Amino acid sequence: REVLFFPSRPCCIEALLAEAAEPGAPARPCPCPLPSGDTALSRLVRRLLSARRSLDLCLFSFSCPQLARAVQLLHRRGVRVRLVTDAQYMGLHGSQIGRLRHAGIQVRHDQHSGYMHHKFAIVDRRMLITGSLNWTTQAIQSNRENVLVVEDADYVKAFQDEFERIWEEYNPANYIFFP
Amino acid sequence: REVLFFPSRPCCIEALLAEAAEPGAPARPCPCPLPSGDTALSRLVRRLLSARRSLDLCLFSFSCPQLARAVQLLHRRGVRVRLVTDAQYMGLHGSQIGRLRHAGIQVRHDQHSGYMHHKFAIVDRRMLITGSLNWTTQAIQSNRENVLVVEDADYVKAFQDEFERIWEEYNPANYIFFP
Repeated sequence: REVLFFPSRPCCIEALLAEAAEPGAPARPCPCPLPSGDTALSRLVRRLLSARRSLDLCLFSFSCPQLARAVQLLHRRGVRVRLVTDAQYMGLHGSQIGRLRHAGIQVRHDQHSGYMHHKFAIVDRRMLITGSLNWTTQAIQSNRENVLVVEDADYVKAFQDEFERIWEEYNPANYIFFP
Repeated sequence: REVLFFPSRPCCIEALLAEAAEPGAPARPCPCPLPSGDTALSRLVRRLLSARRSLDLCLFSFSCPQLARAVQLLHRRGVRVRLVTDAQYMGLHGSQIGRLRHAGIQVRHDQHSGYMHHKFAIVDRRMLITGSLNWTTQAIQSNRENVLVVEDADYVKAFQDEFERIWEEYNPANYIFFP
């Protein structure tokens, strides 16, 4: 049970990613000038990297390269990643959606003029990560934002059910346009 | 403990507002064609109208006239309403911020290029209402959105503390520009 507030100080997450990619491997110092301290971003990344079986993402906007690397790493490690996003925003400059699709991650999107405006993640069907934060570097570094980490089963189930509804509704078999 | 998902069916909230303005008064049917059923919007309005002492609002975008009427009603009823919003968005066409200020409600805004992107409300310092939903008619009627209603004291305190931090930081005595 945790609340993260943003903006987050910029930080290096290489050590977190390296540890997740190869647990127990000797740490190699990253040459970048950013500190690797405890920040809202590093806490968010830690929560995501705790996934062992599944990661369900429902994200209006996803352009942050650091978070995209964390998601790709989970996918490579065999975690079942599913991603729902917004059709208008997924094609914007800097979007990570194409890169994630290229890596083999399943992506589905809405077909409406209204936005798919959720910003939540569910880790292993047991931990809900939700709030105002779009997964963009601008939001992480410059905006006032909140993210709740919730393990209460009632809340998690409500969002998991919403995810499954949307996942079925956005099945590509139902697509009538392809942006 | 509740989760509301949007889009909400359009609905008439006149009966809710009338009951809140004059509890126990005989209901007068509204001539509008909208149903007055149980919807995500009507549930959100009910939660807000339960305020007796204070309503702290921290909203990126606030253009929904129905929600503005509910907030004005609480203000008239003597509830202490404080509103924090985003400087870039508060001047957009359709924004309700000017109307609320005109009614005598205290409003403060950021001075940053980053967004004040929170979308939460705290009722009587005991109930947190937070999620992805901006308070716009578009979001309510057209977007996929979530709103959590949380009475857990730890979460409420974290958001109340964030509200007080922002409220002080955005004190007009500190303003260096006036949009």
